[in-house]
Amino acid sequence: MIILGIDPGLAIVGWGVLEYQNTRFRPLAFGSINTPADLETAERLALIHKHLNTIIDKFHPTQMAVEELFFTKNITTGIRVAEARGVILMTGRERGLELAEYTPMQVKQAVVGYGGADKKQVISMVTRILSLPEPPKPDDTADALAIAICHAHSGCSRLGGFYNQMQ
Amino acid sequence: MIILGIDPGLAIVGWGVLEYQNTRFRPLAFGSINTPADLETAERLALIHKHLNTIIDKFHPTQMAVEELFFTKNITTGIRVAEARGVILMTGRERGLELAEYTPMQVKQAVVGYGGADKKQVISMVTRILSLPEPPKPDDTADALAIAICHAHSGCSRLGGFYNQMQ
Repeated sequence: MIILGIDPGLAIVGWGVLEYQNTRFRPLAFGSINTPADLETAERLALIHKHLNTIIDKFHPTQMAVEELFFTKNITTGIRVAEARGVILMTGRERGLELAEYTPMQVKQAVVGYGGADKKQVISMVTRILSLPEPPKPDDTADALAIAICHAHSGCSRLGGFYNQMQ
Repeated sequence: MIILGIDPGLAIVGWGVLEYQNTRFRPLAFGSINTPADLETAERLALIHKHLNTIIDKFHPTQMAVEELFFTKNITTGIRVAEARGVILMTGRERGLELAEYTPMQVKQAVVGYGGADKKQVISMVTRILSLPEPPKPDDTADALAIAICHAHSGCSRLGGFYNQMQ
């Protein structure tokens, strides 16, 4: 299957497309959609919609895995991320992709082996699992790949995830 | 000009289309988009997108006025509303509508005459301003019409708004 992992945001949407077959990954493409801060929110959301459609047109993913939203400190940022997330979910649905959502903890659990892992550990494991020559940048892209890996791993249901397979 | 007022939500999107010419309103249509709670969020967002496009196709508004989001009590509800709002703003942008956002206080100020007005007063004034035979239902629809009225009123810039004109 071909999985599109998404780390949602208004300024930066991290994305990564992975082919997953016989427990092996092949990264097809990854990157980030960046929207200029001087544009109006609606315009930035339309840009996200447009670029996401282009990615779907190009790589034909059948699954979309999106990080769930948690509000911690900044409510205003949280609203903007949620607005972008709405556009992302809607796009996935309209393009007929199977959708799944994972919490940051589920993603860390699946990729690193425990839910309390830090960002560096996630990036390092993503780089290793996908045999990338260097860590994907920006961090949002690495996160999106981690979400796609998490989804491949049977919805993160097996405890330990890829961490255990790599030992 | 033809104004589409929107009261955003995931379960209920209130909407109202008003023609505004020579300080007079003509309500063209109003109602609500209701999305079933048993559908997945992405599906509900796609429904909102679809119905909104139908409304735009039918009534050709040139302006879209949307209520700004404030989180008060329920963060989870707030996230869902923001996701719907993202889809609404994106749709307006993609359809080339001029967009404006107003706070609930600005809307109350413009329609009732003071920002602390309660829901009943807003509904009552909307009914009166638009010469409707009865109050629009649900409340979300009345709110959407109030937002459109607020937008017509030069972006709520004149203090007192329609309240003063009606005295």
